[in-house]
Amino acid sequence: MPKISNKGFKMPESPIRKLVPYAENAKKKGIEVFHLNIGQPDIKTPKVALEAVKNNAVEVLSYSQSAGSEAYRQKLADYYHKNGISLNSNEIIVTTGGSEALRFTLGSITDPGDEIIISEPFYANYIAFSTASAIKIVPIISKIEDNFALPSIEEFEKRITKKTKAILICNPGNPTGYVYSKEELQKLAEIVKRHDIFLIADEVYREFVYDSSVKHQSVLSNFGLEEHAIIIDSVSKRYSMCGARIGCIASKNKEVINTALKYAQARLSPPTFAQIASEAAMDTPQSYFDEVIEEYKERRDTLVSELNKIEGIKVNTPKGAFYCLVELPIDNADNFAQWLLEHFSINNQTVMLAPGAGFYSTPGYGTKQVRIAYVLKKEDLIKAVNIIKAAISKYNLIENRKKHFVKTI
Amino acid sequence: MPKISNKGFKMPESPIRKLVPYAENAKKKGIEVFHLNIGQPDIKTPKVALEAVKNNAVEVLSYSQSAGSEAYRQKLADYYHKNGISLNSNEIIVTTGGSEALRFTLGSITDPGDEIIISEPFYANYIAFSTASAIKIVPIISKIEDNFALPSIEEFEKRITKKTKAILICNPGNPTGYVYSKEELQKLAEIVKRHDIFLIADEVYREFVYDSSVKHQSVLSNFGLEEHAIIIDSVSKRYSMCGARIGCIASKNKEVINTALKYAQARLSPPTFAQIASEAAMDTPQSYFDEVIEEYKERRDTLVSELNKIEGIKVNTPKGAFYCLVELPIDNADNFAQWLLEHFSINNQTVMLAPGAGFYSTPGYGTKQVRIAYVLKKEDLIKAVNIIKAAISKYNLIENRKKHFVKTI
Ligand SMILES: Cc1ncc(COP(=O)(O)O)c(C=O)c1O
Ligand SMILES: Cc1ncc(COP(=O)(O)O)c(C=O)c1O
Repeated sequence: MPKISNKGFKMPESPIRKLVPYAENAKKKGIEVFHLNIGQPDIKTPKVALEAVKNNAVEVLSYSQSAGSEAYRQKLADYYHKNGISLNSNEIIVTTGGSEALRFTLGSITDPGDEIIISEPFYANYIAFSTASAIKIVPIISKIEDNFALPSIEEFEKRITKKTKAILICNPGNPTGYVYSKEELQKLAEIVKRHDIFLIADEVYREFVYDSSVKHQSVLSNFGLEEHAIIIDSVSKRYSMCGARIGCIASKNKEVINTALKYAQARLSPPTFAQIASEAAMDTPQSYFDEVIEEYKERRDTLVSELNKIEGIKVNTPKGAFYCLVELPIDNADNFAQWLLEHFSINNQTVMLAPGAGFYSTPGYGTKQVRIAYVLKKEDLIKAVNIIKAAISKYNLIENRKKHFVKTI
Repeated sequence: MPKISNKGFKMPESPIRKLVPYAENAKKKGIEVFHLNIGQPDIKTPKVALEAVKNNAVEVLSYSQSAGSEAYRQKLADYYHKNGISLNSNEIIVTTGGSEALRFTLGSITDPGDEIIISEPFYANYIAFSTASAIKIVPIISKIEDNFALPSIEEFEKRITKKTKAILICNPGNPTGYVYSKEELQKLAEIVKRHDIFLIADEVYREFVYDSSVKHQSVLSNFGLEEHAIIIDSVSKRYSMCGARIGCIASKNKEVINTALKYAQARLSPPTFAQIASEAAMDTPQSYFDEVIEEYKERRDTLVSELNKIEGIKVNTPKGAFYCLVELPIDNADNFAQWLLEHFSINNQTVMLAPGAGFYSTPGYGTKQVRIAYVLKKEDLIKAVNIIKAAISKYNLIENRKKHFVKTI
């Protein structure tokens, strides 16, 4: 039988995939599962976007331009200007999700064997995209004790080699919820300029920042990174349109955009209906965002105050995105998450969590952590945290008994 | 300034990209351009597909399953059964176009430096996908004199090395229009089994076969290739839905499908609206296909008989797909195609052609060839060929004069 490749073998599975059958089984038994494990918001997609698709006048559903429709890219440029980011439509390529923007970026700036530096924990699929490009992630630990702030610049410098092509940041952060300060971004700007490498900024959660004291700064706002910065963006979270599959890559570096365009041409075009929806979504009224941000802020505050009732938990208040990475007083989050689905429920309800280890590339890290996505309404978040709390007590009791049992036999 | 990668540098441009500005200029001058250069049909998308999108009940446009919706995959399995191909829904992964299916395939079975064998001329983007995967295409020439039939098996054997992971065929062929016979596929089946490599079959033009004497055979129909065959498929051409961006990868080799699924998970999901359209499209009445095939057959016959009026042309009757690769009595098709757009028109009309060299990876081949896509209605095809005919005479006259001029100075 012909064999798959080493690369194919090394491609990681989704970190929650192992748990899916257990969640399905729980549902079969009639148990309701609160999905805190995925970044799929329950927020309604803006009506303008959905209506535009319903009212489309397409007769021949043809390929669009490889770079995305000119009209949509022009609107994107306007959106960026409003956000203090100066970009023209020809510095933007519309992609099939932020996922494809990441792929085009790595394809454009790395060769097999090259390295990119990322502070961990990070979005799990960065491992997959790097494996697919046959490049290596060089991680730097950011600590839960520091609320996952930027590691010191010395830590970055230590890791830069001839093979380093870029530093990749996610800002606001998935899974950390951290938002980098201006000072942190300035430090990053200095280092990428000094070593003449790229700074890739995954800013798909740009809008999701909750405190008036925290302002999101784009790498393309005022850091002199015209040649070095590449922005990854997406409509998935901004408009709760994950299923559209529209994102973009933006850079003022012409070589990068010309190269990314060759990748875009190879796959012909981004999806047409989704572009119709995304273009229309740009007319979403500000009131929609105000409500959504207020809703997430309340959810965050509810979640964090509920979590703080759990003895022994380590939890920070996330500044942005809609995730909270917490450390639980348990031995192993993988086992705990599985046990929750297999053996625990209150009033026929249980919780699905994303085990933390999947967000680290260094083995042994994050094993007691779980990522909680606050994509459910407050009442459900409260119920879910109560379930987690009761579950921890019971789980630890059983684990202790097991240990005792092992000791005494 | 940080630099793009070697791979990014080597990524090919679309072979017609150079011509686009000339076409745009012609249009600005008020000249109508007949686009024979692209595989974008003018055929209307089935109403059932478009209506399903208009009537969608989406409120939260969420990610779908990474492998594609279960309902759609089940319908695909039924479709394959009807076509004599035995596949279950879990042997199919829905992709963002056939393009993504090709990418998942190469990602799953090749490592950087590996080789795949393809008979040329071939679909130009195979070069791009191979470059993106840092693998090498090993070409074998198929000849216009043989109507681009399968090269001899000895030619394949000669090229198989330890690095060879697969033979890739396109059947029916773009740009050749050739449809492989049962005997040819049997030969390919033998060789891939003997050397235990994969046979990737790009069958996106499966439906487009025009003569009752020619029957399309899938690599998964009766060749004992359960472990070796990987099918690339797409709704783009079948339902004239290129802008949907839906295709699939199908294989009975479990390792291949499991590996491709990891690539699918990394990019989260295929586009939702497009899946709604594609699922609905499966209910397209047979009468639609009968009409479409009849229309293409008439176009093909019209095109070939018109082309045959050009003195010195080499043209075969394509058996399938909707392309015709012809050799023109000119010195260089790249120059001719550009000249057509820049300097020639009849009644304010001209033609855009796809120069043949872009479909070969061996330098120097196909330089007098052009690919003609018969995606326009018959009247326009007749006009277009008349323009080509007149243009050839004038172009050759000018070229001869230039040569003469060069000689005499
Ligand atoms: C940090 C981050 N980047 C990129 C993506 C990719 O999203 P999409 O491809 O839907 O735009 C996600 C999705 O969850 C994400 O969390
Ligand atoms: C031979 C062949 N394969 C694959 C594709 C990719 O098509 P899509 O990604 O639209 O499915 C095309 C498009 O023209 C093609 O001609």
